[in-house]
Amino acid sequence: MSLNQGVDPRTGQPVGDPIPDTGPEQVRSAVRRAADCAPRLAGMPYADRGRLLNALATALRQHDDELIELADRETALGRPRLPGELARTAAQLDMFADVLRDGAFCEAVIDRPDANAVPPHGDLRRMLVPLGPVAVFAASNFPFAFSVLGGDTASALAAGCPVVVKAHPGHPGLSQRVADLATEALAEAGAPDGTLSVVHGYEAGPALVTDPSIRAVGFTGSTGGGRALYDLAVGRDDPIPFYGELGSVNPVVVTEAAVEARGREIAEGLAGSFRLGTGQFCTKPGVVLVPADSGFDAQVADVVRPSEPTPMLTARMRDAYQAGLAAFTDVPGVRAVVAAEPLDADGHDVLPAVLAVDAETFAAHADVLAGECFGPVTVLVEYRDRDSLHRALRAVPGSLTGSLHAEPGDPAAADVVATLRDGVGRIIVNGWPTGVAVTWSQHHGGPWPATTDPLHTSVGATAIRRFLRPVSYQDVPDELLPAELQDANPLGLPRRVDGALT
Amino acid sequence: MSLNQGVDPRTGQPVGDPIPDTGPEQVRSAVRRAADCAPRLAGMPYADRGRLLNALATALRQHDDELIELADRETALGRPRLPGELARTAAQLDMFADVLRDGAFCEAVIDRPDANAVPPHGDLRRMLVPLGPVAVFAASNFPFAFSVLGGDTASALAAGCPVVVKAHPGHPGLSQRVADLATEALAEAGAPDGTLSVVHGYEAGPALVTDPSIRAVGFTGSTGGGRALYDLAVGRDDPIPFYGELGSVNPVVVTEAAVEARGREIAEGLAGSFRLGTGQFCTKPGVVLVPADSGFDAQVADVVRPSEPTPMLTARMRDAYQAGLAAFTDVPGVRAVVAAEPLDADGHDVLPAVLAVDAETFAAHADVLAGECFGPVTVLVEYRDRDSLHRALRAVPGSLTGSLHAEPGDPAAADVVATLRDGVGRIIVNGWPTGVAVTWSQHHGGPWPATTDPLHTSVGATAIRRFLRPVSYQDVPDELLPAELQDANPLGLPRRVDGALT
Repeated sequence: MSLNQGVDPRTGQPVGDPIPDTGPEQVRSAVRRAADCAPRLAGMPYADRGRLLNALATALRQHDDELIELADRETALGRPRLPGELARTAAQLDMFADVLRDGAFCEAVIDRPDANAVPPHGDLRRMLVPLGPVAVFAASNFPFAFSVLGGDTASALAAGCPVVVKAHPGHPGLSQRVADLATEALAEAGAPDGTLSVVHGYEAGPALVTDPSIRAVGFTGSTGGGRALYDLAVGRDDPIPFYGELGSVNPVVVTEAAVEARGREIAEGLAGSFRLGTGQFCTKPGVVLVPADSGFDAQVADVVRPSEPTPMLTARMRDAYQAGLAAFTDVPGVRAVVAAEPLDADGHDVLPAVLAVDAETFAAHADVLAGECFGPVTVLVEYRDRDSLHRALRAVPGSLTGSLHAEPGDPAAADVVATLRDGVGRIIVNGWPTGVAVTWSQHHGGPWPATTDPLHTSVGATAIRRFLRPVSYQDVPDELLPAELQDANPLGLPRRVDGALT
Repeated sequence: MSLNQGVDPRTGQPVGDPIPDTGPEQVRSAVRRAADCAPRLAGMPYADRGRLLNALATALRQHDDELIELADRETALGRPRLPGELARTAAQLDMFADVLRDGAFCEAVIDRPDANAVPPHGDLRRMLVPLGPVAVFAASNFPFAFSVLGGDTASALAAGCPVVVKAHPGHPGLSQRVADLATEALAEAGAPDGTLSVVHGYEAGPALVTDPSIRAVGFTGSTGGGRALYDLAVGRDDPIPFYGELGSVNPVVVTEAAVEARGREIAEGLAGSFRLGTGQFCTKPGVVLVPADSGFDAQVADVVRPSEPTPMLTARMRDAYQAGLAAFTDVPGVRAVVAAEPLDADGHDVLPAVLAVDAETFAAHADVLAGECFGPVTVLVEYRDRDSLHRALRAVPGSLTGSLHAEPGDPAAADVVATLRDGVGRIIVNGWPTGVAVTWSQHHGGPWPATTDPLHTSVGATAIRRFLRPVSYQDVPDELLPAELQDANPLGLPRRVDGALT
């Protein structure tokens, strides 16, 4: 057994008390408690379940100063980022309470008997029900929004599934404090014991994914770590759904017309986006396709060069960033627009880097250059014509987002949007991918390797669907039907009846 | 390379011309044609895509006599089964055309900019788009409804995904004839070349699942075969969704009150259901939990004993049935209510069997007795009280369906429905699981091992969702948006706008 010790990224020094690994027996016990309470949580009226989520949001808001201070010591993400992230995390919990109140999420569908159908059928009614206990793997880079009470937890609880969170070792103290506050808030709001637990330590991860009572997994993290856990989930005797949000390169295309009209403004936007949070965003723009000889590289260099060092979350991530930079610059034909030598410092500080390469070289070395390098680096890919642009764009692996900077009536725009759609989950025009709205329409997902399952999202209202499965009721008398499907529609749900939306 | 030779199950003799295996280069070519036409199919207006489906339905109906004759020679499923199945398959194609006309399947959601949201957001719009080329594995037991133009193909084409079908070797001649008719009908209706292909031979299966251009797999068949292909799909460098409908035991619970009130009628219903199609249904009731000492076994024996031999689809399935029966009867405590000795015949004939065992023995030997035995056998599990009933019921693995026979106000009913819901995808009261309606509300799925993914169905309107993935558009100008998301709603789709369903 080892200890999970928070470290201050600004100094490299330990902060807070170390938290011991959760042993295998304690992991099993957390899952057992989750399984035991699953029927009660599943049976709670939607409004009551919504109140659990609201209570968690309130707990975050009531302890915001304390939690932000804790988070800052372990992550150095500072202000205004951390207060914004806490507010967003609380709002996300409230949003899922709204989703429960709305009720459409359960997808109630009723088909009355029809003797003339081919084949004829009786009374058939369908709705979604909770999958059962869910394991959630917290991310390093969003200590609130993708951690203990982040989107995976919020959507799983909303679905009626108890959650066991594997805390991220980058912020163990914050994770444990949030867990304690959540446990208290849930108990006060009437949640059954076992609704939410938090476990620590590397070995707790595989133990969770292979526990027979765990019915699904939500994961945010690296491609390597995610793939290893995915392989465990799908390799079980009874495979379970694994929703992994992994690496993402997030290509950006800048058209000739856009560079001409507002190159400097786009360069400033890019500089802001790829350096945000020291480049530690799954939506960081990692590859920017720009017209060759347009002078855009110099405009970016002008904006980025005055950068101050900023700390990465962990020493390991700092080292991985420097190694990734070195791998990029080792490719013949890659030039440093803004170089970033490793710093000799106590903490985890790094400098931002901007690289450039022609589109042909990029496409030929996409195995390296189109890989994700977590940290403040972006690669300018210089294209000469439509063909080289699209070839380079198609060499970028599946991503969470793809962006286009274009002018009104830009002749290049439609084709780029079409190519982007094949490879990404969110298309942005004249904006930047960092900053993920929490809405009904959000999709935070994408083709492999952005995620392990392109059908699902980890942000937005439809994230709940990952933890629900359909059940149909055939000729079941009204008194044995769940309220969602009863004739009188006591919950007032939007339903499809005999083919028509009501 | 080997040959795919149709065999008449009634005689064991070859019928029709043998069809050669599709070689690896031809498989690759079929997938390449699918990939090449995918953008055109995806870009077709929904109404036009609907007309492709209607054209396929019409082709089936126009050639019904010929196809039914072909199917009967290779499957011996006879009349009225085969005409009914063809009609159902055509109706299913038409239903997906209706789903396209309805338009809700694309899940259009629009959130207008909101500066007061936490966090504030711009214009964000979400819809579902096609995944890309799909591989479909046809089943043996439904030569129309789960074969070349079955539910997987219909839903994938409706989604806008080209399809390559791996034909089942049990009816190669029918598969090829349907493929030829479909190719002709699709071409006439304006589908791009490559929209639908059919391949033959054992080796074509793994080749399809591992082809880089295949984006999802639909499969209906055995647990062993499905698991092997599932492992290939999830083991790819880029894992793809695999929707397998595998084995299912389909437990049935008969309450004491129901046996008392109408034991004979229930026995007749059971006898009809488990022998239907020589027991070769994924929805065959394989385990029937009945009150001990209720005389229900004698009632079933009375009805089943006069059975005539009927042929199974293939010699291999006949042998597997006899081996499965032997494994069941080898368990100490299992008694034959109706025994079924292997027949010495030229064709694939078998006799139906009814076994009985007490609930405790069943639960203790569930690894054998709660396994699927494909063919006309059902196991009566005799329970003494509520606890032994529920323990035995929980020992049944995940199933497509679970049924309850109960009386009005039956005190046992609610608990049984609750236990069934944990383990099955469709709950039936006072009916039988065979016969699967094709409706908006149908769910033909269930927890492992009934399927590889409990979130999805292979029958009913929502089967289309397996082949669609979400894309969000952020701040994309109206002229670059797909029609589904444009302000004017030119397609007249049901949409959610700013949180409200419209």
